[in-house]
Amino acid sequence: MDERGLPAEDVRKLLSQAQSKDLSYSGGRILGSMCTSPHSLGREVFTQFLETNLGDAGLFEGTKGLESEAVEMIAGLLGLAGTSGLLTTGGTEANILALWAARNKGRGKKVVAPETVHFSVDKACNLLGLRLVKTAVDSRKCADLGELESRIDHDTCAVVGVAGTTEYGTVDDITGLAKIALEKELYLHVDAAFGGFVLPFLQELGYPVHFEIPASGVDSITLDPHKMGLVPIPCGCIIFTDPETQGFIETEAPYLTLKRQHTVVGTRSGAAAAAAYAVFKHLGREGYRGVVKQCMENTIKLYRGVVKLGLAVRTPTINVLAIDCGPEVYDALGKMGWRLSQTREGEMRIIVMPHVSEKVVREFLRDLESVAGDFHV
Amino acid sequence: MDERGLPAEDVRKLLSQAQSKDLSYSGGRILGSMCTSPHSLGREVFTQFLETNLGDAGLFEGTKGLESEAVEMIAGLLGLAGTSGLLTTGGTEANILALWAARNKGRGKKVVAPETVHFSVDKACNLLGLRLVKTAVDSRKCADLGELESRIDHDTCAVVGVAGTTEYGTVDDITGLAKIALEKELYLHVDAAFGGFVLPFLQELGYPVHFEIPASGVDSITLDPHKMGLVPIPCGCIIFTDPETQGFIETEAPYLTLKRQHTVVGTRSGAAAAAAYAVFKHLGREGYRGVVKQCMENTIKLYRGVVKLGLAVRTPTINVLAIDCGPEVYDALGKMGWRLSQTREGEMRIIVMPHVSEKVVREFLRDLESVAGDFHV
Repeated sequence: MDERGLPAEDVRKLLSQAQSKDLSYSGGRILGSMCTSPHSLGREVFTQFLETNLGDAGLFEGTKGLESEAVEMIAGLLGLAGTSGLLTTGGTEANILALWAARNKGRGKKVVAPETVHFSVDKACNLLGLRLVKTAVDSRKCADLGELESRIDHDTCAVVGVAGTTEYGTVDDITGLAKIALEKELYLHVDAAFGGFVLPFLQELGYPVHFEIPASGVDSITLDPHKMGLVPIPCGCIIFTDPETQGFIETEAPYLTLKRQHTVVGTRSGAAAAAAYAVFKHLGREGYRGVVKQCMENTIKLYRGVVKLGLAVRTPTINVLAIDCGPEVYDALGKMGWRLSQTREGEMRIIVMPHVSEKVVREFLRDLESVAGDFHV
Repeated sequence: MDERGLPAEDVRKLLSQAQSKDLSYSGGRILGSMCTSPHSLGREVFTQFLETNLGDAGLFEGTKGLESEAVEMIAGLLGLAGTSGLLTTGGTEANILALWAARNKGRGKKVVAPETVHFSVDKACNLLGLRLVKTAVDSRKCADLGELESRIDHDTCAVVGVAGTTEYGTVDDITGLAKIALEKELYLHVDAAFGGFVLPFLQELGYPVHFEIPASGVDSITLDPHKMGLVPIPCGCIIFTDPETQGFIETEAPYLTLKRQHTVVGTRSGAAAAAAYAVFKHLGREGYRGVVKQCMENTIKLYRGVVKLGLAVRTPTINVLAIDCGPEVYDALGKMGWRLSQTREGEMRIIVMPHVSEKVVREFLRDLESVAGDFHV
């Protein structure tokens, strides 16, 4: 740190220089991210509540109430009532909280999950001293339930299912997993970080997707408002179907206004909670349905365009596309400024977020065609 | 979630109603919090960088550069160079990262720390499957090094020291701890979450405090820009004195623009990084020294006022005061609107943050006098 500070105007110039090296979602070239520009009302509200701290919630009882209402609205989205839950810094923290509760509740040290599980589950297991066993998926990239069940043993404390996998957007059979979890008396966590704000609306729109949280068998669910929920970072959510589960991750918090904490982080943003509440209230199910409808229509346009080009592409379940086009095509598109990502198997992976407009889809298809032609794909 | 959304104006009204139940730091009644109003430039910059995500840092290379510079400025504050580090969501995540690295690096499952250690270390140990052994402190509320050393055994992987304890603001002998850690080949973590942005400046101001990070023996240090650094939440920091240490908490991150993660959280706010950079650059050491000077002068005014009232109060090391006034006085002040906190031993604990102005100190002393008189303390 320098001895003397710079005038605010000079600092603003330095920041603008730095920001010019950043990409922006509105620039339309980011196709590989599950984040997007937050809703303008969420942005405004976040700024308004910037100094609030839900880690010392007794000082911010109004904001704490907004968090409770936001969590209830999210549980309602899944058709759940009588749950407990918290807003988190994102899906990773939510997945950690779930497996932390499972470990402290159960006796085993092993977690069984399909190989399509998000890498935050690897992280959570390393952190928690758990052993993660990954099981095969079927040709649709969904958990093979027979295979998964066969890997459960006396040391297993939890099973994880995914509703909207990060790589393929596919949805595991949660009802089937819940049956297994009930039979084996295991903790079942569902990672719907991305899919949670897509699947309920796709179902309402009549798309052929199946996602439901059965009345029993599921212990916790992750959903991320800061992905398809259009809420500013940091905003994830964990729902515990049995409010008692939260007690297994309790930390005593002396000298704070509330004496119990249930999050990984201590000080935590109330601004995200207020923003989540605001965006949920402002958009309503109708608003989110519109967002999801637009994303899915653009996904299908992109899918059809790729099929027309003769490239191999998986039929999308939600607004995630995996195109098997070879590394040269992928690299060439990167050089043209497209920010893509890849599945672990090397397919080009595209998340059709709200900032990926129809115009972006057209431009991308045009570039894909030219590049694929160059390489005679 | 309702089917139909509400107009933005209606949502704003609901939010204002909620916010009216919150306290604000500027209201002057919050005396028990280590957070405060963020600096206005930090607030502005946070809003400007709201959509950036350092969990996918390849998309935001400018903001990533700001994080690196901010971390370097923090290391410089401690007189360190050639370190590595990261901005985190706060002190809790930073302490978890440190003990996670220690566990993965070492062989033992035991952590030894003075009983004044922050409860986030209890949380970290529960999360990481470590056993925390707390050792006695001396009459000044500093770690008793002999006692601490005697509790180290073959199963110990780490020792924690505190520079600015949450309850008393006291500073452990870090140089002495480093000696022990070197001798016993143990990981030493220093929690300077609060003190890190106070102690270097108090030393420069000539106050009789001793704090330094010796050239060897310390593995990591936590400092929180979102406490005395005046940066908006969520902004903590972890510094690793040996860049290789960070490798012990590495998670593979497929399909992101950067393939390695070293934080607990995945998606993480770049806005906090930009805001930290901006406030550091704008205030410089001179600016922070002014903030700390004002806080310490008000601490001493409050201390002298309490002494004058004949109440028992510990001599403050930094801007944290512990007053032994009995529960009736504490409760009565709470009913008058003062938001205080208590040490685990029941003393009234006051953090003289920048929002605790001289005027607030005078008002508080007046109320304390009247209440103490009522109870004939």
